[in-house]
Amino acid sequence: MVRLYVDAPLAEGQPVALTREQAHYLFGVMRLAPGDALLLFDGLSGEWRAEVAAADRRGGELLCRERTRPLAPPPDLWLMFAPVKKARTDLIVEKAVEMGAARILPVLTEFTSAERVRPERLRAHAVEAAEQCGATVVPEVAEAVRLDRLLAGWPAGRRLCWADERGAGEPGAGAGFAAAPAPAALLIGPEGGFSPAERARLGALPFVVRVTLGPRILRADTAAVAAMALWQAAQGDWR
Amino acid sequence: MVRLYVDAPLAEGQPVALTREQAHYLFGVMRLAPGDALLLFDGLSGEWRAEVAAADRRGGELLCRERTRPLAPPPDLWLMFAPVKKARTDLIVEKAVEMGAARILPVLTEFTSAERVRPERLRAHAVEAAEQCGATVVPEVAEAVRLDRLLAGWPAGRRLCWADERGAGEPGAGAGFAAAPAPAALLIGPEGGFSPAERARLGALPFVVRVTLGPRILRADTAAVAAMALWQAAQGDWR
Repeated sequence: MVRLYVDAPLAEGQPVALTREQAHYLFGVMRLAPGDALLLFDGLSGEWRAEVAAADRRGGELLCRERTRPLAPPPDLWLMFAPVKKARTDLIVEKAVEMGAARILPVLTEFTSAERVRPERLRAHAVEAAEQCGATVVPEVAEAVRLDRLLAGWPAGRRLCWADERGAGEPGAGAGFAAAPAPAALLIGPEGGFSPAERARLGALPFVVRVTLGPRILRADTAAVAAMALWQAAQGDWR
Repeated sequence: MVRLYVDAPLAEGQPVALTREQAHYLFGVMRLAPGDALLLFDGLSGEWRAEVAAADRRGGELLCRERTRPLAPPPDLWLMFAPVKKARTDLIVEKAVEMGAARILPVLTEFTSAERVRPERLRAHAVEAAEQCGATVVPEVAEAVRLDRLLAGWPAGRRLCWADERGAGEPGAGAGFAAAPAPAALLIGPEGGFSPAERARLGALPFVVRVTLGPRILRADTAAVAAMALWQAAQGDWR
């Protein structure tokens, strides 16, 4: 069944006005007609069954019927990654949502050589991924921020699992994750790795837990999924 | 440094004739010139440093100098997946190589609705991923085979971890992997899931270990990376 995120609180009997884009998707692409059922979620109240009340190529209205699932927020895990090429950055956002990150933070490192990050584009990908994967919450996509600033203002009590690409071949991929219960964050580096200064700083910070991801060099999107899988299985909602 | 897979045994002092495609890549795309160094691997003898001896847009020759790394084959893990759309299938092959599968098997299930799988295309992706991720072996990409046939001729002693999408929300993502040391295989289903008959059969086979991958519905490429990460950390070369 079609799932749609709506940016307004849902309740039983609540009418939902559609934007032009939503109407295009529901009626133009998915070919829904009046009376057809779909699922809605608002990120606040879980998932709801709704029906098409009025359909128009440029708008329309849904009627929210009954709740089908309670709100199930992901664990308090941030995914921090250095943006790469556009298509791969989009993939990372998609994967972060499927894997259950609560917050997605593009971070700019010394060796980041990315096209400009467009938060609206990434947020649209996050919404689409949440609709697709059955999530009841769309993770927040933060504005891109410099790594050094982020580390300088790091919140007390949150562990940061640093995926160190130089750890290739060292034993113990799972070891670090065991020491990083929620609230936690994962940091995936840029294609060129972290700079010597960044490495020294990360290695010295008390809230940083170094983790390794096997003997091969992983692309950023692969590393993000692998690290999230190990964290979720050790500390998150895959336990 | 550029890494190139060559389909011929390498040795110290060995000249390596280039195909037209290899010459185009090295000299046209990567702009290497005579005397430039690169890395070679043949899947048999590890990784070697080589030099460009002669460069031509349509051919050329390399000279193999000295071994830089020993052969490091991945653990005996098969990745079995139901092909999806072309771009996602390509991604799954890329991820399987990075994550260290020894063999990649497209499997046709009752609900598989894929474009035709072209093994040469998938093999080219596997070679490119191996060059990129630092592997010294290119995993075998098998011809697509029907799941029921594959199960009927299943090799003795190999465990099959079945990623059951119906397990969403059940506890214990890591549990099954603990019971599946090498030789092992991972089975990722098609977008529509497995059929009732397939589910019944998988559930009854003595070599099948059921595994779950969290409460959200994962795309096939995400599920493949997540399952491989958990297996590698529990049983493979990420330990």
